[in-house]
Amino acid sequence: MLPIDFITQLHTLLPPERIYTDPVECYSYAYDNSRKIFPPEAVVFPLTIEEIQAITVLCNAHNIPLTPRGRGTGTSGGSLPEKGGVALSLERMVRIIQVDLANRVIVAEPGVLNQEIQEAVKPAGFFWPPDPSSAGFSTIGGNLATSAGGPHAVKYGTTRDHVLGLKAVTGAGIPIKTGCYTTKGVVGYDLTRLLIGSEGTLAIIVEATLKLTPLPEKLGGLVAHYRDSISCAAAIVSIMGISKGPSALEFLDAGALNLIRNRFPDLLPAHSQAMLMIEVDGSQHDISEISQTILAACRNPGLLHAEQTTDTAHLWKARKALSPLLRDIAPKKINEDIVVPVNTLPQFLDQLASLTRHYQIANVNFGHAGNGNIHVNLLIDPDNKEESIRAEKCLNEIFDLVIKLNGTLSGEHGVGSEKRAYIHKEIDPPTLTIMKGIKQLFDPNNILNPGKLFP
Amino acid sequence: MLPIDFITQLHTLLPPERIYTDPVECYSYAYDNSRKIFPPEAVVFPLTIEEIQAITVLCNAHNIPLTPRGRGTGTSGGSLPEKGGVALSLERMVRIIQVDLANRVIVAEPGVLNQEIQEAVKPAGFFWPPDPSSAGFSTIGGNLATSAGGPHAVKYGTTRDHVLGLKAVTGAGIPIKTGCYTTKGVVGYDLTRLLIGSEGTLAIIVEATLKLTPLPEKLGGLVAHYRDSISCAAAIVSIMGISKGPSALEFLDAGALNLIRNRFPDLLPAHSQAMLMIEVDGSQHDISEISQTILAACRNPGLLHAEQTTDTAHLWKARKALSPLLRDIAPKKINEDIVVPVNTLPQFLDQLASLTRHYQIANVNFGHAGNGNIHVNLLIDPDNKEESIRAEKCLNEIFDLVIKLNGTLSGEHGVGSEKRAYIHKEIDPPTLTIMKGIKQLFDPNNILNPGKLFP
Repeated sequence: MLPIDFITQLHTLLPPERIYTDPVECYSYAYDNSRKIFPPEAVVFPLTIEEIQAITVLCNAHNIPLTPRGRGTGTSGGSLPEKGGVALSLERMVRIIQVDLANRVIVAEPGVLNQEIQEAVKPAGFFWPPDPSSAGFSTIGGNLATSAGGPHAVKYGTTRDHVLGLKAVTGAGIPIKTGCYTTKGVVGYDLTRLLIGSEGTLAIIVEATLKLTPLPEKLGGLVAHYRDSISCAAAIVSIMGISKGPSALEFLDAGALNLIRNRFPDLLPAHSQAMLMIEVDGSQHDISEISQTILAACRNPGLLHAEQTTDTAHLWKARKALSPLLRDIAPKKINEDIVVPVNTLPQFLDQLASLTRHYQIANVNFGHAGNGNIHVNLLIDPDNKEESIRAEKCLNEIFDLVIKLNGTLSGEHGVGSEKRAYIHKEIDPPTLTIMKGIKQLFDPNNILNPGKLFP
Repeated sequence: MLPIDFITQLHTLLPPERIYTDPVECYSYAYDNSRKIFPPEAVVFPLTIEEIQAITVLCNAHNIPLTPRGRGTGTSGGSLPEKGGVALSLERMVRIIQVDLANRVIVAEPGVLNQEIQEAVKPAGFFWPPDPSSAGFSTIGGNLATSAGGPHAVKYGTTRDHVLGLKAVTGAGIPIKTGCYTTKGVVGYDLTRLLIGSEGTLAIIVEATLKLTPLPEKLGGLVAHYRDSISCAAAIVSIMGISKGPSALEFLDAGALNLIRNRFPDLLPAHSQAMLMIEVDGSQHDISEISQTILAACRNPGLLHAEQTTDTAHLWKARKALSPLLRDIAPKKINEDIVVPVNTLPQFLDQLASLTRHYQIANVNFGHAGNGNIHVNLLIDPDNKEESIRAEKCLNEIFDLVIKLNGTLSGEHGVGSEKRAYIHKEIDPPTLTIMKGIKQLFDPNNILNPGKLFP
């Protein structure tokens, strides 16, 4: 329970319509896409940096946990108020402060949706490259917190590559300004990228200066079907060996294809056991040239069929539907987003198949293969305890395999609470100690999203 | 003077041929391109991370300043052993550890020259985009320390955009490992980019995993001459408004052109008062298309002449010669590398001209205009004290102008010792306090490159 004088003081900072303390109202802020539930004891909706600063200072004075939150679309529990306290929702800070097309910059508050950024700049021929599948309903604040990426990261990189500067309030309640407004700048330490991907554990981002990219002139699509995942993975390695590569390269295994077949019966050839959905962009001339090179790279003994395709919208819709489709059949699926070096994908998928066979865990894999970033889904029955234990063991071995192959445990979801038990597999103790020191520097009382990210 | 027991212990860590204590030998490590001179009391040449760790621990135990150093090509004094102590030269750590073309990665020790990286991967069709004009003789360790960039940053970004992970030894002597080996990765805080650009004040980088980029298929060149800098700057704004832009866009003002004319008499048209050197890359088709669009954007009432040119090598050579040519006429030139938003370049150059006129300071400007990154050179006579005072006042107002235009004081040189007195113009006190806290976390005894970067 929050102390009564804390609540009283909170009410001096914000009008009543921007403070929830009723448990029923607070419950809407108890979960994210990790499906864990931790209700906050209050939810606040600040509108300004000054309000955020005052709230943070107050939480420090009373030692109350404070968990910043966008739209709760994360999958790693990063925005859950795991230790109770106050959820700080940024969903009402939705101003686009400046659209500066001459300098290819947009300045926005953290609650602006990714898609709203795209809509604001698309008519002028620009986009902001980070494209998580949640783009329609996730905020740029959340995208920054996890350094979100998506299918186009293979060509355009992730969030950290497209931010020039930030304003933020540290866990201690101190407002800071990082980076600059220009595309070059080397004055002082790079705090911008230190905050990006820090999952709301260091500071609350209150304003972001985002770098825009010109929209490609045209898009082209290709599909390739394979008799098995391993030959498909071999094609991925070949495609990524091309100098002018794809703007998206998505892999779907047999399990993923079957899910799509159930929902969209006539979309896919019956015999395909693994598929690549490929996008290329540029001028019509680029697209023709790159497509031919990619089609050549697709060819190997396992290839069933590859072709250019003009109407890819329905395919991308099916690809986007995969995560919700998986939820339907396995509400408690374990959804990972591991990354391995691209040329180890054939080995990874082969050994992954051995592991899931050994542990008898249903498994569906798809993802951003051009970055070696695969969503490994372990489908489990929540009522089957014995199976859950097997799945945990299997997951542990999958993570070991990823590290052995020189990969990383998370390409886009982040650590949050879901992966913190495994972070020591990837980050050695001295490096983790430095990270904890940085946490303490920004948030000396450990009130900001406490317990996240660290084991 | 270094304590005798410190020297004795140093000799237990390294063989004699890798320790200099003779002042004559040490003197070669006393300067960089800032032309300040601070001789170290010893120079060490470690070969391994373990040796670097041992040296760092020893310096901590004796509270001896330790200044890491590549090839001393920096212009901001970042590698100068300003407080004496030990210069740690990384010039003998020159191994390329791994060239992994399938994953577009090269792993190298910090003493490898930028150009050696390029040579190692060029035959396979790749390059590492950071291209400081010192690339032929500056190390990747130094490039990382300053997040170096060059003409191609306008298309390809700077060092921080092309590094996947690092190994480093903190100022406290603790080995850490940052980032990962893959193009996506969001596990833990981004220490990679925290170290990049930290100018050797946080940790000594001992190994870097660099991301490679496919070489463009072909290069094309254009030149445009203007009757004055302001109309030339207006053309820069137009060119940077094109979606498919140049791969380099260099600006040279009348002073810079005259320097070139003195050395290469027949290279430039006599009447040109400002010039753009433009590079475009891609397929032949891309180059034709982009060149036409750029030529159209070059047109304005101040344009004298613009054309595509096939033989640009001699022009680039002249451009590269500008800094040394300036040194010849003004050995004590003040060489800045400010950045302003591209669309403020006309206003910046106009107000800069007023300032240098007002303070009667000879001034030559050129640089990476596509990023708004201009090398502002104030040419002064070292024996003229009164002029130096005027130049300092002028510089101070130039920096104020840059900040007023939402720019940054340094686009590629860094702060070092040269710009630390001005850093408060750009970074506010709370943000600077956080940066100092990070410094203290990595280097609690303040032995690593002490005094640099902070005012």
